[in-house]
Amino acid sequence: MTMQSTDVDVVVIGAGPAGENVAGRVVRGGLSCAVVEDHLTGGECSYYACIPSKSLLRPMELAAEVSRVPGLALDGPIDVAAVLNSRDKAVGYLDDSGQAEWVTKLPATLLRGRGRLAGERLVEVKDKDGTITTLRARHAVVLATGSVPVVPPIPGLAEARPWFSRDATSVREVPARLVVLGGGVVACEMAQALHALGAAETTLLVRGGGLLGRTEPFAGRMLADSMREAGIDVRFGVKVTRIERAADGGPVTVHLEDGESIEADELLVATGRRPAVDDLGLDGEGPVQVDDSMRVPGSDWLYAVGDVNGRNLLTHMGKYQARVCGDVIAARAHGRPDDATGLRDLADGKGAPQVVFTDPQVCSVGRTEQAARADGFDVRVVEYDMGRVAGASLLGDGYTGRAKIVVDEERKVLLGVTFVGPAVAEMLHAATVAVTAEVPLDMLWHAVPSFPTVSEVWLRLLEEYGL
Amino acid sequence: MTMQSTDVDVVVIGAGPAGENVAGRVVRGGLSCAVVEDHLTGGECSYYACIPSKSLLRPMELAAEVSRVPGLALDGPIDVAAVLNSRDKAVGYLDDSGQAEWVTKLPATLLRGRGRLAGERLVEVKDKDGTITTLRARHAVVLATGSVPVVPPIPGLAEARPWFSRDATSVREVPARLVVLGGGVVACEMAQALHALGAAETTLLVRGGGLLGRTEPFAGRMLADSMREAGIDVRFGVKVTRIERAADGGPVTVHLEDGESIEADELLVATGRRPAVDDLGLDGEGPVQVDDSMRVPGSDWLYAVGDVNGRNLLTHMGKYQARVCGDVIAARAHGRPDDATGLRDLADGKGAPQVVFTDPQVCSVGRTEQAARADGFDVRVVEYDMGRVAGASLLGDGYTGRAKIVVDEERKVLLGVTFVGPAVAEMLHAATVAVTAEVPLDMLWHAVPSFPTVSEVWLRLLEEYGL
Repeated sequence: MTMQSTDVDVVVIGAGPAGENVAGRVVRGGLSCAVVEDHLTGGECSYYACIPSKSLLRPMELAAEVSRVPGLALDGPIDVAAVLNSRDKAVGYLDDSGQAEWVTKLPATLLRGRGRLAGERLVEVKDKDGTITTLRARHAVVLATGSVPVVPPIPGLAEARPWFSRDATSVREVPARLVVLGGGVVACEMAQALHALGAAETTLLVRGGGLLGRTEPFAGRMLADSMREAGIDVRFGVKVTRIERAADGGPVTVHLEDGESIEADELLVATGRRPAVDDLGLDGEGPVQVDDSMRVPGSDWLYAVGDVNGRNLLTHMGKYQARVCGDVIAARAHGRPDDATGLRDLADGKGAPQVVFTDPQVCSVGRTEQAARADGFDVRVVEYDMGRVAGASLLGDGYTGRAKIVVDEERKVLLGVTFVGPAVAEMLHAATVAVTAEVPLDMLWHAVPSFPTVSEVWLRLLEEYGL
Repeated sequence: MTMQSTDVDVVVIGAGPAGENVAGRVVRGGLSCAVVEDHLTGGECSYYACIPSKSLLRPMELAAEVSRVPGLALDGPIDVAAVLNSRDKAVGYLDDSGQAEWVTKLPATLLRGRGRLAGERLVEVKDKDGTITTLRARHAVVLATGSVPVVPPIPGLAEARPWFSRDATSVREVPARLVVLGGGVVACEMAQALHALGAAETTLLVRGGGLLGRTEPFAGRMLADSMREAGIDVRFGVKVTRIERAADGGPVTVHLEDGESIEADELLVATGRRPAVDDLGLDGEGPVQVDDSMRVPGSDWLYAVGDVNGRNLLTHMGKYQARVCGDVIAARAHGRPDDATGLRDLADGKGAPQVVFTDPQVCSVGRTEQAARADGFDVRVVEYDMGRVAGASLLGDGYTGRAKIVVDEERKVLLGVTFVGPAVAEMLHAATVAVTAEVPLDMLWHAVPSFPTVSEVWLRLLEEYGL
């Protein structure tokens, strides 16, 4: 074990999307930077999360669209091998050399190894040979280590070698029988994708009473209806008491509190994620609390961006925080004012935008009605059946969708917007602009949606509101 | 011929989308209303334009998407009969009883016949039996008669019985050989739709040097490339000197200035539209000029909305003008203030949003770079290759798209936005909100596009701009 020591302006631990963006911004700001990564440069998102999951979901989404359009028919079922190949290509065959090159060309230093805080402005990096390098940060250390799956304390679970999200998105052989634990984004997306790719018997076991707990309740209900219609067994209020897998490669049995048991070929555990803070040299296990400049209160050098700070476990919000963080570090390092609009996280607190790529897709930004009321706003809501919009009916027969806006009656601005329906993903950004910039309703009235698009639902919502 | 006379608060001539919306708003405002229509209630858009054209284009669009997604394949070519049936259903089999019922239930009076101005606040309606009814408007007469195709002065054209847009959207038998005159929206959409539905030899003859003259030049270039790749013969700088059709049902021959001639089964003339002012009792042939309250200057009772005023020949803008117009008429009738934000057309002048449903789709709002410079703005533009956005590459292999923003450097707001690519239609409304509400760039920076959507191009554009 040799020891080296290097001085650098900024050290970033974690080369996922958030860490990469911090590096990009501080280098642009004239600082030197070292990025520490112990697995793949590019992070969970590029190899095991957003990218492969969307790649697996896209054929299902498009097949559903085709089924609604007269004059087109698919030539048989989805070609699973082709989809898995396409997924492999989308994740770059788990080769991160392109991403690594992006970091080094910034230019920044990429250190392969596990980083941990070893004191004020000090990071120790242990590589796979056990060699330790000590990095001394002149200005800042940024934690961008992401998150890891929560493992629920169910007897027998670990021994049953369950799948977590990585296993599902990396699937090579689709199990015919699949049990999914959880009702959040990963659980819903992967249950639908794997079901469409051959998991004929798919069972979703949800502890609570609905899907996608943080969105408007109607979204989860519409998604559950769609899953059930497709043949997925969706069960709510389920408590799993024990898991068994007698033999490697054999079936897994999930025992429920009511005495029933379900046998499957694989079990996917998707019951949430927690900040990846193990072995990071921090006290405590929770998310690393930060202020709106992404700095840990009480410190003038430690920052945290992305999943590890627990604000919103979403790639785009991690990248957003990273831009704020990188820019504010550069401003402070150069002794420039650090309070410009771009140097604060203004978006996370309003309710981050999110697209769930299920069928139907679920898009939301800002607060739900319930959250807005809980926050004390004077709220009025309007809902609208998107199937009644001309542009929606032109997309296919039997289009089903729903939109909801949450209005702050005092300021007459939008607090939240939710769209549920096929292919609504690209509709969200209009809502994100309106919610973030707090565009007054009487100005939104002049933003005319084009005919015949599904976006005309904006007009209908405002008409229903009374404009 | 009998004569009847009726007094009513507001008379609307034309029951297309614009006329219907005026009626809806004035009735909501407590006024009585009569609507005059000599063809189908619901107008050009519902039966002969936006609705059937999109219905014909949708299978083509979706087939192209399927071709880009590994794992899916279509079972043979598009089933043309099924598409035409679907189009027939979309236009309600040209039965306008549902729309007529909508008008009468407002409640408003629907008069079938041809309306013309017969004096101040006076409208004469002549029905198909020649009976004339005179309507006396207490408050306002609104012209909403739409537009008709321009017939270019080409020798032999009328005798050759060409198709105009209505014939193309109402197609029952797709001609194997088609010549299209024009390079605007109707020409491009219908050339692509009919080509995809069986017009194997489709030739587009364009007088000018590009397609979609009012959009950013790159949009027309990308569309022309796509058409040529699909096998459509696109020719620019073409002058047609003479048209011949020897026999009914026989081929039509289009003679060009350079001596060449093209034989086809049908000729579609799509060289623009002009306001429908014939026999309306007006002086002149041009569009009916109006102020931002939609009122004809010099009059306190005559208004014009939709295509007939020539502001923007787009259904959604006609409906928007109709909402402004109906509300301002009601305000003035009741002696209320007539200068609230909602009582003026603030959107048309900034550059109306428009989606062209071709492959690729072309969406734009606001000013092009050229228009912005001509208007004297201090302009900076940014373009971005949308195929480089992760969300785009996940939609399919070989995604090609391009985005452009036009920034007002003085105020740091967007003057114009253009997206060209597959399925970009629903991306436009975010741009429409940003341009209309003049959201500052440093606030758009906090409107985080969701990952992985194509809307992430917003982030890339702002990064390229320098944020």
